[in-house]
Amino acid sequence: MFGQYLTKVRSKNPMVHSITNFVTVNDVANVQLACGASPCMANHPAETADMTAIAQALNINMGNPTDTVLAGMVAAGQRSNDLGHPVVLDPVAVGTTPYRTFVVETLLREIRFTAIKGNASEMRALMGMGGHQGGVDAVEADKPTEANLTDFIQALGAFAKAEGCLAAVSGPLDLVTDGQTAYVLRNGHPKMEEVTGTGCMLSGLIAAFLGAAPEAPLEATVAAMAMMGVAGEMAWERMQADEGNVTYRNRLIDAVNLMRAEDLDARIRVEKCKA
Amino acid sequence: MFGQYLTKVRSKNPMVHSITNFVTVNDVANVQLACGASPCMANHPAETADMTAIAQALNINMGNPTDTVLAGMVAAGQRSNDLGHPVVLDPVAVGTTPYRTFVVETLLREIRFTAIKGNASEMRALMGMGGHQGGVDAVEADKPTEANLTDFIQALGAFAKAEGCLAAVSGPLDLVTDGQTAYVLRNGHPKMEEVTGTGCMLSGLIAAFLGAAPEAPLEATVAAMAMMGVAGEMAWERMQADEGNVTYRNRLIDAVNLMRAEDLDARIRVEKCKA
Amino acid sequence: MFGQYLTKVRSKNPMVHSITNFVTVNDVANVQLACGASPCMANHPAETADMTAIAQALNINMGNPTDTVLAGMVAAGQRSNDLGHPVVLDPVAVGTTPYRTFVVETLLREIRFTAIKGNASEMRALMGMGGHQGGVDAVEADKPTEANLTDFIQALGAFAKAEGCLAAVSGPLDLVTDGQTAYVLRNGHPKMEEVTGTGCMLSGLIAAFLGAAPEAPLEATVAAMAMMGVAGEMAWERMQADEGNVTYRNRLIDAVNLMRAEDLDARIRVEKCKA
Repeated sequence: MFGQYLTKVRSKNPMVHSITNFVTVNDVANVQLACGASPCMANHPAETADMTAIAQALNINMGNPTDTVLAGMVAAGQRSNDLGHPVVLDPVAVGTTPYRTFVVETLLREIRFTAIKGNASEMRALMGMGGHQGGVDAVEADKPTEANLTDFIQALGAFAKAEGCLAAVSGPLDLVTDGQTAYVLRNGHPKMEEVTGTGCMLSGLIAAFLGAAPEAPLEATVAAMAMMGVAGEMAWERMQADEGNVTYRNRLIDAVNLMRAEDLDARIRVEKCKA
Repeated sequence: MFGQYLTKVRSKNPMVHSITNFVTVNDVANVQLACGASPCMANHPAETADMTAIAQALNINMGNPTDTVLAGMVAAGQRSNDLGHPVVLDPVAVGTTPYRTFVVETLLREIRFTAIKGNASEMRALMGMGGHQGGVDAVEADKPTEANLTDFIQALGAFAKAEGCLAAVSGPLDLVTDGQTAYVLRNGHPKMEEVTGTGCMLSGLIAAFLGAAPEAPLEATVAAMAMMGVAGEMAWERMQADEGNVTYRNRLIDAVNLMRAEDLDARIRVEKCKA
Repeated sequence: MFGQYLTKVRSKNPMVHSITNFVTVNDVANVQLACGASPCMANHPAETADMTAIAQALNINMGNPTDTVLAGMVAAGQRSNDLGHPVVLDPVAVGTTPYRTFVVETLLREIRFTAIKGNASEMRALMGMGGHQGGVDAVEADKPTEANLTDFIQALGAFAKAEGCLAAVSGPLDLVTDGQTAYVLRNGHPKMEEVTGTGCMLSGLIAAFLGAAPEAPLEATVAAMAMMGVAGEMAWERMQADEGNVTYRNRLIDAVNLMRAEDLDARIRVEKCKA
């Protein structure tokens, strides 16, 4: 059922404009190519609006912006809004410094997002639920667990309703909701935490899936999150002797490249509930 | 015959100064090391002229410039011109936004290039032949084919003559000409289109080969383009089960690293003709 | 004995704030994750002091700074000094351009470093011993050898004493000294010179080890340098047919990820002497 969104990405080959950080940008581009999208990175405020106009989706990742890049994000986001393109926000490390709060407040004020996807600490910070200051990684105590799942979904649903967008948390448990319906995903592998950029890659995939299926944003986002988790599992199963975290990263993107719609449907562990 | 230029790169170990984009810069550095050159990346306009003075070639890639980096490119390009160093331009995504047109016009006005290498859409845009707006990737309809090959070579030759430099198109068919003589190359593999940065890596290789053989720029450029294509073939032949686009990227650079001059000579598929 | 510092990194999971170059930043993040640290990259001067306050160590790499990033380095370095956090400097390509001299002088004036680690040409330039202008790579004639080892250690010791910090040289022979005691390390593999960023990765590891063992900075630095060298050896032993420099880079980081404290202790080739 969710495999159909992967099929759409492969047949439509959406161009995705990413304004993202220099740490993981190469992996984001390659994972988008891996899933069948066409990545394009352009940051200069003199061109981001023009570039996004010829794309099918925009991916804004606040990993390491400069003032100029922030201006480029706003220009691109507003043009995408005007054109009705899906726009994804990855609020990297929000909650750790006052500057990150300023950046996210600027973006939320100036742009209407289709989806906001962070790790548990980032999403808690956005929801005003504290969020421990753990740098770019989620703090263990912040993560949704089977025990607090209902409460976490409710809070995320309220945030989604208030912001008028999809809200998603990635981690050992992935959650996504539009404020009415929520999905819980139980795919993935702990080794993903030893690779930089898995969160950035996921945002890149979500933008690709939204670009290919803007008519079904919630389901397309579920499919993208499932694809990342399933790729994490397949990559682990394919590890050979003496391979560590960087080869795991390579196998992860390779798995996205090789995954068929039927693999996604066969492996997805998803549960639908009320938000 | 063209393998001799690879031998020169390996024996002379030219230092190549690249001012390039943050998406693919790491792969550019590693592919230059792979072929036997010594990469150096420095962008600040306060030092680009000094840095390029101790290099043997300059590689300017307009993938994602800032105003400051553009100033750095001009300073480096002019110093390289003064010193008689080869200078390569990769006009990434030119034709997609007015800003890219401004950047390329600035560079062409301020710097004399030894070689300009783009994909088919970029080179068409530069030649005033339209070029579909496809972001960083060439649009299918723009590419040279066996059917329109003669016309494409003629247009490229006219452009080379007008600009006083080598003009090259990379893609399923590679073309390069100095306006008098043209070479058509038929190496490569379709999987290369699923890897970000193959175009950037190729510009990096061309700069390395020009740095090692500035006395024979056309032939050195042919050799660099052939090396990339042959590496794409060898990488594909070496793919193992469950390997996808990122491992293919790794095997591509590995193949450049392991390729001997005789491999290049044995596998090159090149045709010489009038421009 | 030195393996205990690796054990500390794994048990303490120090957060390391890196302000580094865009060429190798992804590898730096992944090698820090590989060894058990938690990387965080943040460059904006509006947040670097805040970000470094929640980290356990700071890694400043002057590979390709902008004016803004340089301001971010100074702000972070001063806050780290106030908080007593270890701060590492990698003076990339110092000696090649006047701008690099300006950058390093600014950093040395504004920040007290715990350790300065460069290649032989960079450290010679800092020590006022010339240093050939070889771009980012050390020039052969600059490197310490068994013949000039005593002199090199003495000069390095004097520099360490004058700067009040650890001074380290990486290369075929690694040296590190606090001005009193020096260690000579003979691990590593020549293939490391065909990979971009091995020096940057090493600085990243040193910062991670210092963040985990600030009470024993000299020994922690020895352990980090040994880990990099041993990983280079293990990676080489694990190379398969048709693998070149990029797969070697992957295997190098993988080896850091898989290395146990007892592997480090079994393989380290270290000699202690007077500086």
